[in-house]
Amino acid sequence: MSNAALTEGGRLAGQLLERLAQATADPPGVTRAAYGPGERFAHDLIRDEAEQLGATARVDAAGNLYLTLKGRDSDLPAILIGSHLDSVPHGGNFDGAAGVLAGLAVMAELVGRGIQLPRDLIVLATRAEEAVWFPLSYPGSQAALGLLEPAALEARRSDSGRTLADHMLVEGFDPDAVRRGVAGIDGERIAAFVEVHIEQGPRLVAAGAPVGIVTGIAGGFRYVDAKCLGAYAHSGAEPRFARHDSVLGFADLVAGLEAEWDALERDGREATITFGRVESDPSQHGGSRVLGELRFTLDVRSAEAPVLERIEARLHALFSELGRKRGVSFEPGPRFTWEPATMSPALIARLDRAAGALRIEAPHVPSGAGHDAASFAGAGIATAMIFVRNENGSHNPHEAMEVADLDQAIRLLLQFLTDFDNLPGQP
Amino acid sequence: MSNAALTEGGRLAGQLLERLAQATADPPGVTRAAYGPGERFAHDLIRDEAEQLGATARVDAAGNLYLTLKGRDSDLPAILIGSHLDSVPHGGNFDGAAGVLAGLAVMAELVGRGIQLPRDLIVLATRAEEAVWFPLSYPGSQAALGLLEPAALEARRSDSGRTLADHMLVEGFDPDAVRRGVAGIDGERIAAFVEVHIEQGPRLVAAGAPVGIVTGIAGGFRYVDAKCLGAYAHSGAEPRFARHDSVLGFADLVAGLEAEWDALERDGREATITFGRVESDPSQHGGSRVLGELRFTLDVRSAEAPVLERIEARLHALFSELGRKRGVSFEPGPRFTWEPATMSPALIARLDRAAGALRIEAPHVPSGAGHDAASFAGAGIATAMIFVRNENGSHNPHEAMEVADLDQAIRLLLQFLTDFDNLPGQP
Repeated sequence: MSNAALTEGGRLAGQLLERLAQATADPPGVTRAAYGPGERFAHDLIRDEAEQLGATARVDAAGNLYLTLKGRDSDLPAILIGSHLDSVPHGGNFDGAAGVLAGLAVMAELVGRGIQLPRDLIVLATRAEEAVWFPLSYPGSQAALGLLEPAALEARRSDSGRTLADHMLVEGFDPDAVRRGVAGIDGERIAAFVEVHIEQGPRLVAAGAPVGIVTGIAGGFRYVDAKCLGAYAHSGAEPRFARHDSVLGFADLVAGLEAEWDALERDGREATITFGRVESDPSQHGGSRVLGELRFTLDVRSAEAPVLERIEARLHALFSELGRKRGVSFEPGPRFTWEPATMSPALIARLDRAAGALRIEAPHVPSGAGHDAASFAGAGIATAMIFVRNENGSHNPHEAMEVADLDQAIRLLLQFLTDFDNLPGQP
Repeated sequence: MSNAALTEGGRLAGQLLERLAQATADPPGVTRAAYGPGERFAHDLIRDEAEQLGATARVDAAGNLYLTLKGRDSDLPAILIGSHLDSVPHGGNFDGAAGVLAGLAVMAELVGRGIQLPRDLIVLATRAEEAVWFPLSYPGSQAALGLLEPAALEARRSDSGRTLADHMLVEGFDPDAVRRGVAGIDGERIAAFVEVHIEQGPRLVAAGAPVGIVTGIAGGFRYVDAKCLGAYAHSGAEPRFARHDSVLGFADLVAGLEAEWDALERDGREATITFGRVESDPSQHGGSRVLGELRFTLDVRSAEAPVLERIEARLHALFSELGRKRGVSFEPGPRFTWEPATMSPALIARLDRAAGALRIEAPHVPSGAGHDAASFAGAGIATAMIFVRNENGSHNPHEAMEVADLDQAIRLLLQFLTDFDNLPGQP
């Protein structure tokens, strides 16, 4: 598709993504740390553009940015389109930003076409969605809804070691208000929250579809610093019978959880089980060591809470079983959980209808990854997500979203918005 | 056993070990880097003591120290007792040093008892035995025999990054002569080489024996930087079918090699298989990553060359099998090998006889770890080893050898030496 075929909004989104990539480049990729300079630049850029379009900007105590394009009746609950503007270190340019720019593009289209919606449209750029910065689930959108746990403000950013509260202060925001639960927006005042996001897996690529409509967001649990503990020994000198080899204990754990995953799939259940870090102690590396400690991260996800419980139970059974078998012990360490989130069936039906009207292929897809949308769904707000086709996954510099595909999401959103008060059915 | 029951030589060895521990303390443990200050201190200490006993000191081009106590006929090939004086970082005090001090103690006993042996006794303190400093097999004893490969002089010390040649120069030695193959001692002039060393495994502790007579030294191979390569992906977003998870490939490799180890044991074969390092890339840790790369060290040992070949063959079969099954690839990286070494049956018989005469329990034990003795055996010199009981393994600060047990090795050596030219049988 040539650029000429893009909507004006799509062209604007493409240009702004380009500027964003250049300004936050950190080869290979981009870095926009939560409450760091890259995220700040992105917020400023989006704000300027929205204000040029006639939107009103407002920033809440946590630094989330609300760009409101007035509708005919501002007393009606607004429609929010939002996502985040931070990225992982050396990440791709599209994870998060594409969704905010889709919202801005829709705004540009409405203004360009002279359409005033019946209700306010708010484009929301959240803060700090990427858990690599703070070990928290969407603190930005949680704070927007006044739901951030006060303890979360003491979480430390992985690179700086400074607390979330400190980082908010440095950026000119108000962590005390966040601590008191002062919301940036009242959930009662939101008719629908829609998040556009690149797909982080290959389903849309495999389906040959530019966009997808998300059915639900998986919940999960993560052990961020689990350990298999055995005993260090000399590889040549320690006979097999005397070994307490943490590598063998760990390998058995991997195999045991994979068997559970197989069993779940046979039962028709979906889940993912991932070891995101496996690390022996570099100060103990000598080549000739039986390893006495192996540390790992375990990340488990499913849209179904009972599936998560089943894997958790199996995990702890394996810890004791394998501990006995291998003469090792497992220390699970801190556990971090997030709830599954259901997308609104009414909003999904509306998006289906819009896609049908536009003849855009938009299959239903699950989201294994968490998103700000989960905060809104968790707060009981009607929530939907549109995925945009993207190659090579996300959280890496090789994300490959085509602006032409994003443009399909923009068209879908426009149709959804203009239909919103014309078609029957509550979200 | 009280100190009063020790030989004079044993008491001296105990005192010198104490001084060594204090002077090279690096909590937790001791550090005597190859060609570093701790090793230098130990060489100087041993040299002074031997000279006080009337021995003549000589240092070769590589810095190995020869302490000769004249026998009645210096034209006869000498008997060497030797080991190394370096340690791993934060290691124990006994690995290496105990063997050199056993030699010095024997010398002190001979002098104290006014015994002149028929032939020269040389106590040898080698250099750089611990492979953690240079990725080489016993470069010190190899150089002593004029056998060190010139390329080995370019190997770099793990902490300093400087070459072996540089480190020799800085300590005042002559790497050019080492490069030319100038030997410190002529193998033809050695009647027997005996190394005393702490056992690095639990066999003597389990047997309740103070010393053991070593039957052979395992050879082995090591892949110091092998990799399982898959593809990084988002744990929630990447469906199972699309994953190339390096952790799963690695866990399968561990299980596959363990099955081979089981099969070998069923066939009555001995080996050890150890993963001494398992590491994902810290710059890729995010909790929510499917890991695209896992690096590991694989160390395989056996006293039987065909067993090593069988494991090597199975390893490569697993690389291709698991590569296909898991959608990953294995890069074995540099391979480092060392040959198994056979101990002299004639010397073993002489040590058995000496132990019998002294009523010292001295069972036969294998050595899974490599030792300087392997250099001498590999050069066709009649070689033997005596292990001293030791708890908690070696290469760690918890090595626990009793001087009373070392004293049994000293008595055994004395008997062996005084019998050497009185009893029939060539070594």
